[in-house]
Amino acid sequence: MALITDIQRQEFSASYPEWQLDDSSISRTFAFDDFVGAMAFVTQVALLAEKAFHHPDIDIRWNKVTLTLSTHSEGGLTSHDTELAASIDAQI
Amino acid sequence: MALITDIQRQEFSASYPEWQLDDSSISRTFAFDDFVGAMAFVTQVALLAEKAFHHPDIDIRWNKVTLTLSTHSEGGLTSHDTELAASIDAQI
Repeated sequence: MALITDIQRQEFSASYPEWQLDDSSISRTFAFDDFVGAMAFVTQVALLAEKAFHHPDIDIRWNKVTLTLSTHSEGGLTSHDTELAASIDAQI
Repeated sequence: MALITDIQRQEFSASYPEWQLDDSSISRTFAFDDFVGAMAFVTQVALLAEKAFHHPDIDIRWNKVTLTLSTHSEGGLTSHDTELAASIDAQI
């Protein structure tokens, strides 16, 4: 699994502007009405993550959920990250 | 809801030594076999938290879950925090 190229980074950023793109990770904070809404989303993300066997860091702060994706084995961003981000965005 | 006293802090710390006691919060990291184990625990915690209407910060890192409890409206620790911690420990 190769790291994504600069052009792929730009394409991801253009297509998914809500995701913050850092050197080696992408992250997005999602807000819901309340904790129940946040947990419903986390459950959806968990099922997608387990299916892909690629697991975001998940931070829950009552009604807010921050996901951070990185491919630690490669030390940066791969298509595993961008594809899971796209799958997550397709659920909301 | 009053902040807990110094004596209550000492009692909590003695009874629940796995919880790290800071000025205004308590936290504990739980480790599981894998992400599925971590999510099963998070679901249990979420149900307890919603029942108590008191919600920890929850950080999921694959097989590890860190919970942080504080009563933000009081600016510190109350019995809401220590009682939810005790309920969580009783589940594992």
